Amino acid sequence: MKALVFDGQNIDLDVNYPKPVPAAGEALVRVNLAAICNTDREIMGGYSPGFRGVLGHEFVGVVEALGSGVDADLADKLFDQRVVGEINLSCFATDCPYCMAGSSQHCEQRRVLGIHNKDGCFADYLTLPVRLLHLVPRKVPDKEAIFVEPLAAAMRIVEQVHTPPTKSIALVGDGRLAYMIAQVIALSNAPFTIFGIAKDKLKMFKGYGQTKILEPIAGLPSLVDDEDKHAFDIVIDATGSPTSLATSLALTRSQGTLVMKSTYASNAEINMSDVVVREINILGSRCGPFEPALRFLELGLIKLPAIKTFDPMDFEAAFKSQAFKVAFDFED
Amino acid sequence: MKALVFDGQNIDLDVNYPKPVPAAGEALVRVNLAAICNTDREIMGGYSPGFRGVLGHEFVGVVEALGSGVDADLADKLFDQRVVGEINLSCFATDCPYCMAGSSQHCEQRRVLGIHNKDGCFADYLTLPVRLLHLVPRKVPDKEAIFVEPLAAAMRIVEQVHTPPTKSIALVGDGRLAYMIAQVIALSNAPFTIFGIAKDKLKMFKGYGQTKILEPIAGLPSLVDDEDKHAFDIVIDATGSPTSLATSLALTRSQGTLVMKSTYASNAEINMSDVVVREINILGSRCGPFEPALRFLELGLIKLPAIKTFDPMDFEAAFKSQAFKVAFDFED
Repeated sequence: MKALVFDGQNIDLDVNYPKPVPAAGEALVRVNLAAICNTDREIMGGYSPGFRGVLGHEFVGVVEALGSGVDADLADKLFDQRVVGEINLSCFATDCPYCMAGSSQHCEQRRVLGIHNKDGCFADYLTLPVRLLHLVPRKVPDKEAIFVEPLAAAMRIVEQVHTPPTKSIALVGDGRLAYMIAQVIALSNAPFTIFGIAKDKLKMFKGYGQTKILEPIAGLPSLVDDEDKHAFDIVIDATGSPTSLATSLALTRSQGTLVMKSTYASNAEINMSDVVVREINILGSRCGPFEPALRFLELGLIKLPAIKTFDPMDFEAAFKSQAFKVAFDFED
Repeated sequence: MKALVFDGQNIDLDVNYPKPVPAAGEALVRVNLAAICNTDREIMGGYSPGFRGVLGHEFVGVVEALGSGVDADLADKLFDQRVVGEINLSCFATDCPYCMAGSSQHCEQRRVLGIHNKDGCFADYLTLPVRLLHLVPRKVPDKEAIFVEPLAAAMRIVEQVHTPPTKSIALVGDGRLAYMIAQVIALSNAPFTIFGIAKDKLKMFKGYGQTKILEPIAGLPSLVDDEDKHAFDIVIDATGSPTSLATSLALTRSQGTLVMKSTYASNAEINMSDVVVREINILGSRCGPFEPALRFLELGLIKLPAIKTFDPMDFEAAFKSQAFKVAFDFED
């Protein structure tokens, strides 16, 4: 089969990569669309040392076969149906403190699709345990379903933090993940301000909340206006850059919550005394729930920009593309 | 009256400092004992820019007079009684988002005894609003009551975070505040490990939990042992130094809570991607509740080291003392 394979240094197209065989409890999924995520670029830059194999972890596909040990009813439900998939293959060993406590996404023995010890979705086929698959509602086309993983990551925030309509909320960031977060937060109907750096990007956010530009000072986000200082009950940092942390902290009210969505290779600097004296709650936030994300898509409540598709052959152009969302089309 | 006065540069004894007059709602308190806290040294080093006046915020004293507007029953209860006092003089304005939401300790207009815009307790007399005073139980002598403020700060942790007897807890730090925290956490009966740097200091902690030495590497706390890595549900950082943050984070399990008690002048470096990916909850923790701290002292459940007292005249020697707890004796 065709696959985009990372050898630890570069990515290349292999047209003779072995087609995977579903293990017990797994499904074989024929990939329709597979989207590029920033994490893929970070892996190519060294984010997941030791990873070799097929990249990619955001996909929509069709279940083509099932491995042994899958419940017959479930197999019937899944066979020939469109699915998306969660990416953490946890161990479920009975002595695993995470798997046995309902936090299997934090299992320290887990493999991660296209990220750690498990071939990903930039290929004609992938395999995944059936418990990680979710049926895509008929109403939701592939080009929308491909957004489930980042939308779920945005929804993780409202899974972790209560966002009642009476709390003031700020979002710092104007990228792809921020755009998903903005729409999820807007649906909570709380007073909501979005702080961005790029005027053209911030245009997309109008209608979801008040938008404000942070004027960078010497490459750093500026100090916030007096009226915004310590003004927000909940602040979400989704810039992907460590320089925004001071801004996000300045926006957070005392005893408020600062949700961190940004990952980056370098350490961040933080005024920890401010965190202590003002009793700030900093909360890391990562992967989210797929079913609620699929429900939002089915309800038509999330606005999704058009994606740009590439033939897997043109992977170099795809990785260079500046489009909002880029995906490989494996259907042809 | 006698008072130890900070002029922005130095501290000096003034024997003719004006005796304060209680404002409406305030009590005049004759100071028995007033203890030195690390914050006093930090103020002398520039921690609270602009502060001028009498230093000190940990005291035991006797109510000698009451200002106007104090309820007669309350005045009767307080008059001639021994008291300790909370330190945050909040505004209670009806448009204050903190005072009106039960978080008056975070009021941004607040004055702070001996720290910000309010003369402190290193003096024969101080004044404080009666709502901040707490009667000291007869069983608790002055030399124990003087520990109420740091003990309350330790108890703030169990006010913020649920510490059931089945969660594993780690404390990083072996100083004065850590000693109070260790005793409070020990009473939760959870599996508890105390990580210290100094062998002689760590001796004091035996009996409260398992004690372990972190061998410093090039001035930094060492990496933790494999068995301790990501092993604790709740980690409390009370070293007062930014170098322990990486250690504390390494001890915290995914989705665990890292309680920050340490304040320091410099910024700290943090691996924020680790916080995000492992969904760590970092929680700042500051002042705590006085009544529960007084109850613990009355019950005899907290072991307090002997304090070393100095005449206010000998303030220079007092500030230099390495004793566990140093206090000025104003009774003579």
